[in-house]
Amino acid sequence: MEKISVKAARQATAIGHNVLVQGWIRTRRDSKGGFSFLEVNDGSCLANLQIVAEGSLPNYESEVKHLVAGCSVAIEGEVKASGGKGQVTEVLAKSLKVLGMADPETYPLQKKQHSLEKLREWAHLRPRTNTFGAVTRVRNCVSRSIHNFFQEDGFLYIHTPIITASDCEGAGAMFRVTTLDLPKLAAAGPPVKNELDFFGKPAYLTVSGQLEGEIFACSLGKIYTFGPTFRAENSNTSRHLSEFWMVEPEMAFYELTDNMDLAERFLKRIFKDALEQCPEDMAFFNEHYDKTTLETLQKIIATDFRRLPYTEAVEILEKSGEKFEFPVKWGIDLQSEHERYLTEKHFQVPVILYDYPRTLKPFYMRANDDNKTVRAMDVLVPKVGEIIGGSQREERLDVLTQRMQDQHLKPEDYWWYLDLRRFGTVPHAGFGLGLERAVQFLTGMANIRDVIPFPRTPGSAEF
Amino acid sequence: MEKISVKAARQATAIGHNVLVQGWIRTRRDSKGGFSFLEVNDGSCLANLQIVAEGSLPNYESEVKHLVAGCSVAIEGEVKASGGKGQVTEVLAKSLKVLGMADPETYPLQKKQHSLEKLREWAHLRPRTNTFGAVTRVRNCVSRSIHNFFQEDGFLYIHTPIITASDCEGAGAMFRVTTLDLPKLAAAGPPVKNELDFFGKPAYLTVSGQLEGEIFACSLGKIYTFGPTFRAENSNTSRHLSEFWMVEPEMAFYELTDNMDLAERFLKRIFKDALEQCPEDMAFFNEHYDKTTLETLQKIIATDFRRLPYTEAVEILEKSGEKFEFPVKWGIDLQSEHERYLTEKHFQVPVILYDYPRTLKPFYMRANDDNKTVRAMDVLVPKVGEIIGGSQREERLDVLTQRMQDQHLKPEDYWWYLDLRRFGTVPHAGFGLGLERAVQFLTGMANIRDVIPFPRTPGSAEF
Repeated sequence: MEKISVKAARQATAIGHNVLVQGWIRTRRDSKGGFSFLEVNDGSCLANLQIVAEGSLPNYESEVKHLVAGCSVAIEGEVKASGGKGQVTEVLAKSLKVLGMADPETYPLQKKQHSLEKLREWAHLRPRTNTFGAVTRVRNCVSRSIHNFFQEDGFLYIHTPIITASDCEGAGAMFRVTTLDLPKLAAAGPPVKNELDFFGKPAYLTVSGQLEGEIFACSLGKIYTFGPTFRAENSNTSRHLSEFWMVEPEMAFYELTDNMDLAERFLKRIFKDALEQCPEDMAFFNEHYDKTTLETLQKIIATDFRRLPYTEAVEILEKSGEKFEFPVKWGIDLQSEHERYLTEKHFQVPVILYDYPRTLKPFYMRANDDNKTVRAMDVLVPKVGEIIGGSQREERLDVLTQRMQDQHLKPEDYWWYLDLRRFGTVPHAGFGLGLERAVQFLTGMANIRDVIPFPRTPGSAEF
Repeated sequence: MEKISVKAARQATAIGHNVLVQGWIRTRRDSKGGFSFLEVNDGSCLANLQIVAEGSLPNYESEVKHLVAGCSVAIEGEVKASGGKGQVTEVLAKSLKVLGMADPETYPLQKKQHSLEKLREWAHLRPRTNTFGAVTRVRNCVSRSIHNFFQEDGFLYIHTPIITASDCEGAGAMFRVTTLDLPKLAAAGPPVKNELDFFGKPAYLTVSGQLEGEIFACSLGKIYTFGPTFRAENSNTSRHLSEFWMVEPEMAFYELTDNMDLAERFLKRIFKDALEQCPEDMAFFNEHYDKTTLETLQKIIATDFRRLPYTEAVEILEKSGEKFEFPVKWGIDLQSEHERYLTEKHFQVPVILYDYPRTLKPFYMRANDDNKTVRAMDVLVPKVGEIIGGSQREERLDVLTQRMQDQHLKPEDYWWYLDLRRFGTVPHAGFGLGLERAVQFLTGMANIRDVIPFPRTPGSAEF
C-alpha cells in the first residue's frame, strides 16, 4: 500500500494505484444511490481529493454518514479516473478509518464564509481554510525562492543576532529583552541595576541585521540574512507588524548599479517562482482577492525596471498636475501616493529611485560628490509603493565618521563598524526586503496579519 | 573583463581568461627577481589565489611593496597555469588597485596564531581567518541542506513566532520582552502594570516552535520550522548559547518509527552534503581541529542507526562494568557519559533510544500502554551524545488533558493546543535539532561560541 498525498493522488499518473490517503474532510455529499462523496484535503495542494465511499463499507452507516467538515480520516483504496468537474482522478475507498471526529456544534470552521478578522481569532485552525493553506504554500515558495536565488549565486546565509546590546541600530523603536524581575524591581525602587541584567547591560531585539551583515560581506564577499526583525512601534495598520521576517543581502565590491541589478533580478525571480511553482494557489488569489495579481506579476517579470534619480522623480511629480495630499518639493520624503503615481500612472512599470537627499537617509549610505544626495535606492511597485530599500554603503572612514557626527551619533559606539573601514575597506552595498510585504503583494491579501502564521501587533501576541 | 571569484579563478578552466579579482591580502612575499607573490582571499573558498605582481606595475614600489595582511585590492590580469604547490592556477597582474590599506601596527589579525578566545573579542574580523571562513561556509552548507532536505520531501517552511505570550512553553527559562520603561517602573513602585506593556500582558522569547508547529502539521501535513530560539539559563559552558538556531519538523500521520526513519535520513543527508559540498573546509577541520571527523562522518553515513528502548539501554549500562560518575538505574535521565558509552563503545554506531520513562518527559509525548513510558526518542552520536530529541505527540484529548493535570499544568492555558485534539485529531510526531550542535559535531570545534557569528551568553551580547 502506497502512502500518497492528495496532490499526488490527483495526478493522472496515480490511476490504477492502490493507495493510502490521509487528511481532513472538507465536505460530505450523500448520493441517493446509497453511497457518499467525501472531499478530503491534506494541505499538499489547494484542491481536494474526491473519495467515493460505497454503502458496502462496514462502517458506512455507523461512521461514514456522520463525517463532517474537520474530521480526520485514513482511506485505503484505488485511484480511478474521474468524470467529475475539476478533477481527473478520484479514489474508490476499500476501507475508511476515522482518526478523529469534529463536533459540528462546536467546530468553528463550518461551511459558511468567515471574515478574515474572525479567522485571526482562530489562528490555530485557519490553516485548514483554502485561503490560509494557499498563503502558507506561497509564503513557503517565496522563502525557498529567496534561499535558492542567493545560494545559486554563491551567497552565504548568515545568522545575524536577534538580541543586540549595540547602541547602533536606531532604525526604529526597540523591544527590551530582560531577565530582571519586574515586580521586584518595582518594589526595590530606583535605580535600575542594568549590570544585574542577563547580559550585564540593557539588550534589545534587532531591527535589522545590516550592520552585522556588513561584517561578513567585508570578509567573505556576498552574504544574506533571512530572519525575524522587530519594531516596537504602536502602528495598528494593515501594513505593519511588530515581528516580521526580512531578507538582507550585502555584497562586497558592489556599487549602486550592481545593487539595482541584483534587486531587480531578485524580485523577478521570486515572482516567477511563485507563478510557476504555485499556479493553483496564485489563480485562487487572482480569483478571490485581487483580479489584477497575475497580470501585474507577469508584466513585472517581463519589463525592465525604470531607474531614475530622486531629483527627476520630484520634477515629474511637480509637473504631474496631480493633487497629492502631501505637497511635493525637493527634499521631502516621498509618500506612498507619490510612489504609486510614479510606478502606476507615469511609468506603468516598477521604478528604482536613487540618489536621495542625504538629510532623509541614515549615516551609513554613501555620500555623493554633490554634497546633497546619497547613494540610496528604493524599488517601487504598483499597489504597494516601496518594496525594497537599499544603498551603497559609505566605505570611507573619514566621511563616515563625519556623517555620524552630523547625525549626533558617537563614533566610539560604532568602533567595530568603523574598523571595517579602517582595515581593508571595500565598496559594498545591500538592500532589504520584508517577506510579508512581498507575500502581501503576491497574494493580494489586504492585511499583513493574514500572511504570517501568528501576527504580533500592539496588544496582541496570541498563540 | 570578467569579474571572477577566487574559487573560480583557481579552476583550470579559468586559464587564459582575463579577469578581475577582488579580495583581501593574506600574505605578500617579495622575490629577489624584483616581483612579488600576493596571496588573496575573498571568502569564496578556503584557499587563496596567488597573484604575481611584477616590478613593471606602475605602483609596484609605491603601493604593491607596502601591501600587508588585511589590505583590500582589485587585480586585473590573466589566469595562468601555475607550477606552485597546492594550486593549478595563478594570476599575472596587469594592474593592481589598492582599495583599502590595513596598518600592520593596529590591524589585529597578524600572521601569528590567535587563540579562539581572543578572536571572539574580534568577532567583526574573525570571519577573515581560515577557521571562521570555513565555519561560515559549513554552517551555510548545513542550513541549505536542511532546507533542501525538507523542501524536496514536500515539507512547508513555517515561521513560528519569536515573541510569545503563551503560558505553555516551559522548556526552559525565558527572556521577557517589554516596552515598559524600567527606570520609570522602578520609580513608580509596585504593582507592575502589565496591561500597559506592548502586548497588553507579559511576553517572552520563544524556547521552541513545536506547539505552534503542531498547529500547521495538523492542517497542512508536513512542516518544519528553522529559526532562532532562546534560553535565559545561566549556563556558561562550551555547549550552551542563550540564542541559537533550531530546526523542528512536525509531521501529521507519522508515528514514532516514521519519526526515527526521518531523523536518520535527515542527519545522514546533512553530513553527506557537508562532505560533498565543502570538501576543502572539512579537510581543514579534520587536519586542524579533530582528526577523527571525516572518518566518523563517513561511518555514520554508511551505517544503519541502532534502535533500542531506554529500558534495554539501562540494562546494557548496568551490565557494562563501566564506572560512571552518575550511577545507572531505570528511571534516571541518561547523562552524556551514558549516551557516549552506548554509541561510542558498546554499539560503535549512532543509537536511537526510545520509550523513555514518562516521568522524565513533557506532557505532550504520547503515553505507551505500559503506563510507564512515553514515545520519546533521542538520537545519540559519538563525541556529542544526544544530537536530536523528539517524540510522537499525544493525540488523545482525554490522555493529554490528564497528563497536563498530572504535571500541574492548566488545560485552559492550552485551549488551542487541545482544540487540535478536539477537532479531527491525527497521530503526529516531530523532533528538534540544534543547528550549532550539528555544526560543532561536523567541524570538531570545541566551543559552541565559535560556530555562530555573534554568540550570546550570560554577560555577553557584543556586536
